[in-house]
Amino acid sequence: MAFDWIDAAGAARRRAGLVRTLRPRPADSALLDLAGNDYLGLARHPEVTQGAAEAAGRWGAGATGSRLVTGSTELHAQLERELAEFCGFEAALVLSSGYTANLAAVTALTAAGTLVVSDAGNHASLIDGCRLSRARTEVVPHADPAAVRTALAGHHGRALAVTDSVFSVDGDAAPLPALADACRTRDAALLVDDAHGLGVLGDGGRGALRAAGLAGDADVVATVTLSKSLGSQGGAVLGPARVVEHLVNTARSFIFDTGLAPAAAGGALAALRLLRREPHRPARVREVARDLHARLTAAGLTAVRPDAAVISVRAPSPEAAVRWAADCRAAGLAVGCFRPPSVPDGISRLRLTARADLTDTQIATAARTIVATAPVV
Amino acid sequence: MAFDWIDAAGAARRRAGLVRTLRPRPADSALLDLAGNDYLGLARHPEVTQGAAEAAGRWGAGATGSRLVTGSTELHAQLERELAEFCGFEAALVLSSGYTANLAAVTALTAAGTLVVSDAGNHASLIDGCRLSRARTEVVPHADPAAVRTALAGHHGRALAVTDSVFSVDGDAAPLPALADACRTRDAALLVDDAHGLGVLGDGGRGALRAAGLAGDADVVATVTLSKSLGSQGGAVLGPARVVEHLVNTARSFIFDTGLAPAAAGGALAALRLLRREPHRPARVREVARDLHARLTAAGLTAVRPDAAVISVRAPSPEAAVRWAADCRAAGLAVGCFRPPSVPDGISRLRLTARADLTDTQIATAARTIVATAPVV
Ligand SMILES: Cc1ncc(COP(=O)(O)O)c(C=O)c1O
Ligand SMILES: Cc1ncc(COP(=O)(O)O)c(C=O)c1O
Repeated sequence: MAFDWIDAAGAARRRAGLVRTLRPRPADSALLDLAGNDYLGLARHPEVTQGAAEAAGRWGAGATGSRLVTGSTELHAQLERELAEFCGFEAALVLSSGYTANLAAVTALTAAGTLVVSDAGNHASLIDGCRLSRARTEVVPHADPAAVRTALAGHHGRALAVTDSVFSVDGDAAPLPALADACRTRDAALLVDDAHGLGVLGDGGRGALRAAGLAGDADVVATVTLSKSLGSQGGAVLGPARVVEHLVNTARSFIFDTGLAPAAAGGALAALRLLRREPHRPARVREVARDLHARLTAAGLTAVRPDAAVISVRAPSPEAAVRWAADCRAAGLAVGCFRPPSVPDGISRLRLTARADLTDTQIATAARTIVATAPVV
Repeated sequence: MAFDWIDAAGAARRRAGLVRTLRPRPADSALLDLAGNDYLGLARHPEVTQGAAEAAGRWGAGATGSRLVTGSTELHAQLERELAEFCGFEAALVLSSGYTANLAAVTALTAAGTLVVSDAGNHASLIDGCRLSRARTEVVPHADPAAVRTALAGHHGRALAVTDSVFSVDGDAAPLPALADACRTRDAALLVDDAHGLGVLGDGGRGALRAAGLAGDADVVATVTLSKSLGSQGGAVLGPARVVEHLVNTARSFIFDTGLAPAAAGGALAALRLLRREPHRPARVREVARDLHARLTAAGLTAVRPDAAVISVRAPSPEAAVRWAADCRAAGLAVGCFRPPSVPDGISRLRLTARADLTDTQIATAARTIVATAPVV
């Protein structure tokens, strides 16, 4: 039978202890959530859910077509204007996810003959963008501007360096100013995925590019997601107006996809406006992350010092990581668990995410739970 | 400068008359819409927008994480159960778009050494899935089961035939039973993108696979979008439970993407329930399409006989197509306009979509407008 090979693949996963299953959650869970990416605690904020609900009522449940046909509403245009203005870029283009935004940016800004220099720690969506493009991709060691410089020096013609601003596994920040310098010696463009930076880094949460003084530069493009700090769904590409115009005309994951649902655009817009009005939220989420990290390392655990909201705690093995996460859950705490094959370096870890709306008591409880359930090494 | 090449690309587009621009629409447009894909007229149905709004209020504006971490809610699980049951498949997996659903299905069901046999008229998202996969893709002539049979006969090992059920440019239907026969002679699997079939074809809108008697078969997988007949956003893969389990474990565009926003899931679920309760809607949209086609061909225009809701009307040139669509718009009618490079065969056309909620007067007006503005050949 056509799909019999799937049973063998499944059996191999079970033998390796690597089976993933979906665990649908109820609307009101008693778990303390340190696993999601709702960094500012806005996904269930009444202003944000109301922004989503009102947009559905006013604009419809769906966009009804590609952004190029019937799927662009004035709501999308408004969100694009405010996002670009907030982050300090000339223009923005909203897509249905951060994943499709990364596909769009990488494929539309490259061609056969372009060199893409890609950080070894980049998110899967950037990697898939590289695979989908017709460019040649050179993967360079993680967070290594000298390696980027060397890769670019060996190439004549168009080039694009691609990096996460904050890496999704370990939560460490990319050396953006040094990367921009490396690019500029060769007239290469820089594409930065600021999925974990928007709402967390930079003045008032304006993102890692703003923090690095690179927002709005003529050779810099950022992608963001609307699904983490903005608590909604969707993605965007931010950059010079000519880059956005080029994407509108050529990016397949933009053109051949229905426009973002009005509710998602409305929710993200409400979150953005709330963030502008309450600029202390980004500082608070960074403080929560540092506090969690301090408590865990003080108790003897090995964790990466967080540059943003993600804290990575090392586990001795994949099995130990899975058990640790399960023990946390049994004790009322949801944490992420990263292990092969989704970690490029083979190191398993708990992945914790800080949230601006966590209380000091919740932080203390979370740290205590993680320490109490830690595997004995 | 890094992006100077973009200006040359833009100038070439302008010279060729192929510039695309976004035209954000107001919430209440006076235009008669024959361009969107809201086939059943559900995107703005109060039950559907309320389903979206209520889901945002109850579950939050966003899913807050990957479906594998915090992004699976009981709402997603419910939508998956009802979608699978309605379409007659064992299981369903909801993704953030039809585009990412196609990437997921093609990449997860193939590997190095797999042969993918792909119809020349397939949607861009299936094509991108093929490009992203590690399989070898053989493109076969449009709607040609004998060519599929020949391609499969030349291959030893795993194989997957891939087709739209209703092709998005011309609205013609794929010969699904003959394709399934061709696949079965070689134990190949069949993947059908039913984006334009769900809600339009099959008993009560259960889709093209149901209409062909193939729904639920062990070697058949379907993808659908929630953004056309269901008036919302998102996509799904339907198939045997082991296929869905395999996708949960391996499909990168599922794993590395935030779960579908609750509002989109809630809107789609409300639309699905409404469709179950009002099974006459699919028959009506097909009747509207046939009526439009009859009026246009009676007036001497060349149009493809619609197998579903999409009607393709031939234009003599790209320029004439653009002018024709603009003249329709000036007369109060929104129609789609397809021209190179988004049509594989180089033929420009108007693309009209029928809607179940069009009145006979609106159909007559639309046909009259299209005929009155037709280019003189
Ligand atoms: C670094 C990074 N980029 C892109 C994405 C994809 O964004 P989205 O979930 O909106 O598709 C994610 C996570 O989902 C991410 O962590
Ligand atoms: C045949 C076909 N497949 C897939 C898609 C993609 O679905 P979505 O818009 O939900 O990404 C579309 C249109 O958008 C389509 O026409």
